[in-house]
Amino acid sequence: MKIGLIGFGKTGKSVASILLENEKFSLEWVLRQSKVLENRSVSEFFGVESDKPGLIYSSSKTSIEELLDKHPVDVIIDFSSDNGIYTYGEIAAQKNVKIISAISHYKEKELKFLEKLSKKTTVFWSPNITLGVNYLLFAAKFLKKIAPWVDIEVNEEHFKTKQGTSGTAVKIAEALDVDRENINSVRAGGIVGKHEVIFGFPFQTVRLIHESISREAFGNGVIFVAENLKGKDKGLYNFEDILTPYFTV
Amino acid sequence: MKIGLIGFGKTGKSVASILLENEKFSLEWVLRQSKVLENRSVSEFFGVESDKPGLIYSSSKTSIEELLDKHPVDVIIDFSSDNGIYTYGEIAAQKNVKIISAISHYKEKELKFLEKLSKKTTVFWSPNITLGVNYLLFAAKFLKKIAPWVDIEVNEEHFKTKQGTSGTAVKIAEALDVDRENINSVRAGGIVGKHEVIFGFPFQTVRLIHESISREAFGNGVIFVAENLKGKDKGLYNFEDILTPYFTV
Amino acid sequence: MKIGLIGFGKTGKSVASILLENEKFSLEWVLRQSKVLENRSVSEFFGVESDKPGLIYSSSKTSIEELLDKHPVDVIIDFSSDNGIYTYGEIAAQKNVKIISAISHYKEKELKFLEKLSKKTTVFWSPNITLGVNYLLFAAKFLKKIAPWVDIEVNEEHFKTKQGTSGTAVKIAEALDVDRENINSVRAGGIVGKHEVIFGFPFQTVRLIHESISREAFGNGVIFVAENLKGKDKGLYNFEDILTPYFTV
Amino acid sequence: MKIGLIGFGKTGKSVASILLENEKFSLEWVLRQSKVLENRSVSEFFGVESDKPGLIYSSSKTSIEELLDKHPVDVIIDFSSDNGIYTYGEIAAQKNVKIISAISHYKEKELKFLEKLSKKTTVFWSPNITLGVNYLLFAAKFLKKIAPWVDIEVNEEHFKTKQGTSGTAVKIAEALDVDRENINSVRAGGIVGKHEVIFGFPFQTVRLIHESISREAFGNGVIFVAENLKGKDKGLYNFEDILTPYFTV
Repeated sequence: MKIGLIGFGKTGKSVASILLENEKFSLEWVLRQSKVLENRSVSEFFGVESDKPGLIYSSSKTSIEELLDKHPVDVIIDFSSDNGIYTYGEIAAQKNVKIISAISHYKEKELKFLEKLSKKTTVFWSPNITLGVNYLLFAAKFLKKIAPWVDIEVNEEHFKTKQGTSGTAVKIAEALDVDRENINSVRAGGIVGKHEVIFGFPFQTVRLIHESISREAFGNGVIFVAENLKGKDKGLYNFEDILTPYFTV
Repeated sequence: MKIGLIGFGKTGKSVASILLENEKFSLEWVLRQSKVLENRSVSEFFGVESDKPGLIYSSSKTSIEELLDKHPVDVIIDFSSDNGIYTYGEIAAQKNVKIISAISHYKEKELKFLEKLSKKTTVFWSPNITLGVNYLLFAAKFLKKIAPWVDIEVNEEHFKTKQGTSGTAVKIAEALDVDRENINSVRAGGIVGKHEVIFGFPFQTVRLIHESISREAFGNGVIFVAENLKGKDKGLYNFEDILTPYFTV
Repeated sequence: MKIGLIGFGKTGKSVASILLENEKFSLEWVLRQSKVLENRSVSEFFGVESDKPGLIYSSSKTSIEELLDKHPVDVIIDFSSDNGIYTYGEIAAQKNVKIISAISHYKEKELKFLEKLSKKTTVFWSPNITLGVNYLLFAAKFLKKIAPWVDIEVNEEHFKTKQGTSGTAVKIAEALDVDRENINSVRAGGIVGKHEVIFGFPFQTVRLIHESISREAFGNGVIFVAENLKGKDKGLYNFEDILTPYFTV
Repeated sequence: MKIGLIGFGKTGKSVASILLENEKFSLEWVLRQSKVLENRSVSEFFGVESDKPGLIYSSSKTSIEELLDKHPVDVIIDFSSDNGIYTYGEIAAQKNVKIISAISHYKEKELKFLEKLSKKTTVFWSPNITLGVNYLLFAAKFLKKIAPWVDIEVNEEHFKTKQGTSGTAVKIAEALDVDRENINSVRAGGIVGKHEVIFGFPFQTVRLIHESISREAFGNGVIFVAENLKGKDKGLYNFEDILTPYFTV
């Protein structure tokens, strides 16, 4: 599967490194705003050997049309920012290139745009694209269905400098109808990122815990999504849509 | 719902105490082998007030036919032992009384007998009838389907005197195709019972943890099962059969 | 060692049951306000056999002087309430009977009274008399000394109906100079009581966790304290005074 | 404090990166066997700016005498291998340079050599030089003194490819007199390194948990040790010797 990556910030880099290692994927190019690293290759940047092209382009000099013409891809993966989608969305949809967006915070406007694009191509969006967090959310919602009366609290732990409540924790709480005040946040050194959902039943508890040790976890999420979008029709998909079919296998 | 309870050992007692508190259930009687406590009532035994009958009978003096004639029930719940089922099975099936068995270790012979009974009435069997453990097993199997290549280990912790590996841990490991040597057992004071399934993905982990603080947890499992067997046709059911429909709600 | 117990509420009962089982201690009597259970024995109450007297007296009929004259003890253990100390304090001190008080909330006045009594006899007070919690506090303070700059947060989990922040968690936080807002409280079914101190260092964490599964944990704390007060001079002691000597052994 | 580093493998590099960031330390040089990176500087290698020299030398071309003459240091830190100590030990001791060795597995011969060196200079050795693990060991031994009868088990979790039982877990178990079979090892993706000591008391548990998220944790251990060796006389020290004085402060 041929991949084009939009964005090359911290997370973009981690995802690129995972794609580079995976034999089923070929990272054709990276498109980013900044001119830093322009025309260097991803493999060179990481100091590894690879026969995959993975050249880094700056959107200030190279247009997405040009890129897709010269180096066509099956899927575009977006780890840039809110408005990155406007750079490549229309063209990708026209050319029937699949879109996987991992942008955390879209506004109404971007969501509508995604929907419009999904009329023409396969579009996937997840604000947290790790497999573990999405499984946790899925499994937690299922338990809430089984026992709607259960006590639920959400704990999240992150590195000291993380500001505000974790967006993922908020999303989990909303999905489970848990009050914001029942989200407990720990901030301390030596922690990367942890989410825990505690279900309190009479005389027993169930805990679902997800822990990340690095941003590379996003890369494996992307791979899981890309593989599961194979053969999927045009339309707008989220992680739940991808997990549900496994249930009936 | 009218309930008859077979067995009044430690777990039977805990289950009886939970049934007594629950308004939707009426504990009609307890049938046990021993003559101890004969003709006393469950509420008197626990020192609580209750308008539910809950008289304790010994099978050495009172037959199940007599009991079911004088004090008919909708469901028989079995916390006795392997061969308890032979005491009441045939009669219960004839009279179309539902059977919920929580016996941990049935042999081939008993399983065949259950199947025979299930031709005539609704029969449910679970070797561990807590909601939490069964949810854990269900959710873990689902995650294994999503990511069959994931690393899995099972940890279990129990009170110091518990002999051998926990049967529930063995069942979990078998369901997930985990080697016996990847079950880790801790035995120490101050612990009731804990099961943990660790899923190791690249750069992230998911942990499912169940913890019991007392045998009363079985009582709530019984209630959950009894409520979910309402309206179920004759046939043999297990916990998975009961959980699956929630998925599609 | 001969013991007199003041108070026979939930915790008093649990402590009595532990004392009854321990060969090194003889529970001589229980003194309580209420007349319920008067003149019955503790062993009868628990339905166990024991050759220890353990008769239950009501302070409305029997005075402490009378009790100490007829049934002298080495130690008085107080699980009653704030002002229980006034019932027996003076007399116990006069007779050089040791006092172990496990009352959670004393006011200034009671603390002064304890100090006064400690001029005449050995007095011990701990608002949470479990060995585990006190060890945790001790070990946490030590780590804070080693690394005063470490990030610290306190998590506590208790049963759903527990009101307000756990007093033990508050005490831990104060001892470690942790802000009240860095105490996280979880309230849910299926939990007895858990306290966790998280220390976040660069690239590593240390967690100290204490978990109780029942009130009987207090009984073992009492036994530990009583054994460690042997041979101690008159004076006012707390748990730290008792733990420190082990360090130098 | 001026530092010379012996060894520049994975851990050596992580330690160097931490030393580079710390204002109190000046990394004067690195001495390694390999000629790779010779004459480059540590700051250049990490792509950061720094006014600290930190030049990388190969022991095949540059002798320790020469290095210490031209670039004298206060402390030599050894993250090389078993026999690294023979390269620099004598000279360092002669010149009264302190030695901090973090080599995991010394044999009898090296330990004797360390002792010999400690007659002339301050020598410190710890097979695991993180602050957290050493604190854990210290606190666990203290709890074992308080309650020698407590049930103890050790859990350790590491990345999938780690062979054999963790050396640190073995060391903890030995210090606590815990049988090897009571060490439980989990190996799975998404885990860096975790050690847990479980203490089971009647009705309560205490757990001490240490978790690392990267090798940089060793760097902070080195800094802690170096600062605490200031003003220490010649002699052979371990981590316990350094932690004990904090107790009495």
